[in-house]
Amino acid sequence: MATGFSFTLNATDGRARTGVISTPRGEIRTPAFMPVGTAATVKAMLPESVRATGADILLGNTYHLMLRPGAERVARLGGLHKFMNWERPILTDSGGFQVMSLSSLRKMTEEGVTFSSHIDGSKHALTPERSMEIQKLLGSDIVMAFDECTPFPATGEVSLASMQRSMRWAQRSRDAFGDRPGHALFGIQQGSVFPEQRAESAEALKAIGFDGYAVGGLAVGEGQEKMFEVLDYAPGMLPEDRPRYLMGVGKPDDIVGAVKRGIDMMDCVLPTRSGRTGQAWTRRGQVNLRNARHAEDTRPLDEACTCPACRSYSRAYLHHVVRADEMIAGMLLTWHNLHYFQEIMAGMRAAIAAGRFAEWETGFHTLRAEGDIEPV
Amino acid sequence: MATGFSFTLNATDGRARTGVISTPRGEIRTPAFMPVGTAATVKAMLPESVRATGADILLGNTYHLMLRPGAERVARLGGLHKFMNWERPILTDSGGFQVMSLSSLRKMTEEGVTFSSHIDGSKHALTPERSMEIQKLLGSDIVMAFDECTPFPATGEVSLASMQRSMRWAQRSRDAFGDRPGHALFGIQQGSVFPEQRAESAEALKAIGFDGYAVGGLAVGEGQEKMFEVLDYAPGMLPEDRPRYLMGVGKPDDIVGAVKRGIDMMDCVLPTRSGRTGQAWTRRGQVNLRNARHAEDTRPLDEACTCPACRSYSRAYLHHVVRADEMIAGMLLTWHNLHYFQEIMAGMRAAIAAGRFAEWETGFHTLRAEGDIEPV
Repeated sequence: MATGFSFTLNATDGRARTGVISTPRGEIRTPAFMPVGTAATVKAMLPESVRATGADILLGNTYHLMLRPGAERVARLGGLHKFMNWERPILTDSGGFQVMSLSSLRKMTEEGVTFSSHIDGSKHALTPERSMEIQKLLGSDIVMAFDECTPFPATGEVSLASMQRSMRWAQRSRDAFGDRPGHALFGIQQGSVFPEQRAESAEALKAIGFDGYAVGGLAVGEGQEKMFEVLDYAPGMLPEDRPRYLMGVGKPDDIVGAVKRGIDMMDCVLPTRSGRTGQAWTRRGQVNLRNARHAEDTRPLDEACTCPACRSYSRAYLHHVVRADEMIAGMLLTWHNLHYFQEIMAGMRAAIAAGRFAEWETGFHTLRAEGDIEPV
Repeated sequence: MATGFSFTLNATDGRARTGVISTPRGEIRTPAFMPVGTAATVKAMLPESVRATGADILLGNTYHLMLRPGAERVARLGGLHKFMNWERPILTDSGGFQVMSLSSLRKMTEEGVTFSSHIDGSKHALTPERSMEIQKLLGSDIVMAFDECTPFPATGEVSLASMQRSMRWAQRSRDAFGDRPGHALFGIQQGSVFPEQRAESAEALKAIGFDGYAVGGLAVGEGQEKMFEVLDYAPGMLPEDRPRYLMGVGKPDDIVGAVKRGIDMMDCVLPTRSGRTGQAWTRRGQVNLRNARHAEDTRPLDEACTCPACRSYSRAYLHHVVRADEMIAGMLLTWHNLHYFQEIMAGMRAAIAAGRFAEWETGFHTLRAEGDIEPV
C-alpha cells in the first residue's frame, strides 16, 4: 500500500470483515459509512457534528468541486480539509459518475469526456490524468481511478467494451497518480452483472496494483436482489488484504447485505438527502415526519437513539418544523439519519468482532418488521 | 411586578441603564437583545447554539404560532418551551403587528381584528382577550398587551384615535390576563411622533399598571433620525423601575442609540434574516459574503470574533457556501450575527456598569468607520 497507509483486518465472520484503515489523517474503522460532502459541506451539518455521529471519513465530489469553487482555487486556499474544516480523511470520487448524471453536452472518447457545467454551462474536460490532477489539488486522502460507470441494464457487449476502457483508464490513472506518500489510489471493478467480466476486471486491476478496490457499476437501478447477486461473487475476486468499497450504497438493509458479502466501505447521499425532505431512518424502518399522525405525538423519533433530534424533541415538533419548512428540520433529521447509519456500522463492527454477525442481522431485521414506533 | 418577577437596575450612565430581570425561568441581563424564534425555532440555529451566543431570552410570534401548529396544540404538547427545547424565558408578541403585515382580508373593529391566514386562507380572529389566551396557552413568560401598531406616517388625528383604542385594548388585556404568578404582562406605548400623545399613552398605561413597558410604533419606516427623536423623550415617560422594551429594533447602530436613550430590551429578525442571505454584521460594519472579492480571502470574517464561523472558516469558504446556496452558509452566518449582536449587548452592559458608555460608543463608531476588514 501507499506509504503511510495500512489496512488491518481484525476479524471476519462468514464473508463479513472488520478492521482498520490507518492513514496519516486518522484511522477509518471498517466497515465504514462515508457521509457525502458534495460541495465542501455535508449538507445541513457542521463538520464537528458529522464527527460526533461517528464518521471517520467523508466523501467529496470531484465533479462539483472542480466546477465550484474550482480545484486550483481549493489548492490555493490550502486544500479541501482546511477549506471545509474537516481534518480527518477524505475520499474523492473521480468525477466520472456525476459528469454522466448531471452535466449536459457530454461527449466521451477514448481520451476522456468533455461536458458543460450544470451550473453555468461552461465547458470542461475530464480524463484520467485531469481527474488525478484535480484530486491531488483537492488534497484527497483516498483518490479514485477515473472510470466509466457502466449503465444498467447493458448488453454483454456494451458492458465488456465499457469495462475494458475503464481498465485502460485505470492504468492511465495509476500512471498519472504516481507515487504520493500519504495518499492512496483505489481501482474500480466494472463488468455489470456478468461474472466473467467482473473476473476479467479484477485481474486487470490487480495486475496494475491499487491500495484498495471498489465494486463499481452497482446501485444504478438494478435493484437489491441483482446487486446482492453480484456481491455474492464480485468482492471475493478482489485482494483480501485491501479495503473493498461499494460506491453509492445505500439503504440500511443494502448496507447490511453488502457488509455481509465482504464490503468494507460505502457512501450514500441517502441519510443527508432524506433528512432534508422530512424522512427519517430508524431501527424500526423509515418514518415520514410530514405525516399528520405525528402532529401530537410527544414521543421521540426513536426512544433508544441518543442523537440531538431524539434526545430533545418530540415527533410533534419534528412534524411541525418539517411542515413549516424550517431549516432546523433538515438539521435535526440529517443529524439523526447520519447518527443512525453510523450506529448500524458500529453495531456490525462489534458483531463481526464477536463472531455474532448472523445474530445481529436477525435482530436488525426483526426490529424493522415491527413497525416504526415502539409498541405501547 | 408579577410574583416571581423582579427588575433590578444595577447602574445607569447618562440615560443608559444596565440591570437584571429575574424570572422563574432564569435571569435576563439588560440591555438585552432577544433573537426571534418565529415559528418555534430561531431559523438555522439549534437552541443550545442560540444560548451559546449569550441570549437569555427568545421572542416567539403569536401570529405564526396560532396558525401553525396552533396554540391549543402547543398547550397539549406541554407548552412552547418544552416544544422547542428552550427552557429559558420567552417573550411573545401580541400577534397584532403580524396580522397587519402578513395576513389578508383583515377587518379591524373596536372588538379586535379578523383575518385570513397567509398559510392556508383559514379565518381567524384576534382580540385582546384571545391574544391573552393564546399567549397563556403557549406558556409565554412575558406577555405583550394586544395593540394596534400605528402605521407611519399618521396624521395627529389618526394616531390619536389609534393610540386611544390601543389604550382601551391595554385595559382589556390587563383584565383578561388576570393574576398569573411567574408570568409578566407588558403594556405598549403608542402615539407615533407626537410627544403629547406619547405622554397621554404613558399615563394611561401607568394607570392600568404593567410589569414592563414597550415603546411601540417605531421601526416602522420612520428612519433612525425620527426614531431617535422619539426615544429622546418617550422612554422617560415610562416608570423608571420597570423594563423598557423597544420592539423590532434593529441594526447595530440603532441598538446602541436606543440603549443610550434608556431602552432595556430589543428584538429583531435582522441578524437571523441577514445570515440566510449572505449578509454578516461585524464590528467593522456590514459584509456581503456573496461579493467576489472574498473568493480567495483566507482571512476570517472578523479576526477578533470567537464564533464558529470566524474561528474555523475563511471568508473564501463562507463566500463559496453562500454562492452554492448551502445550508451551512445560513447556519454559520446566523450564528456569527447573533454572536456579534450579543457581544454588542455585553459590551454595553459592561460599559454602563463602569460608567464608560460614551467611551465605548466612540470605539463602536470608530471601528465601523474603518471599513469591513482589519487593515494589513
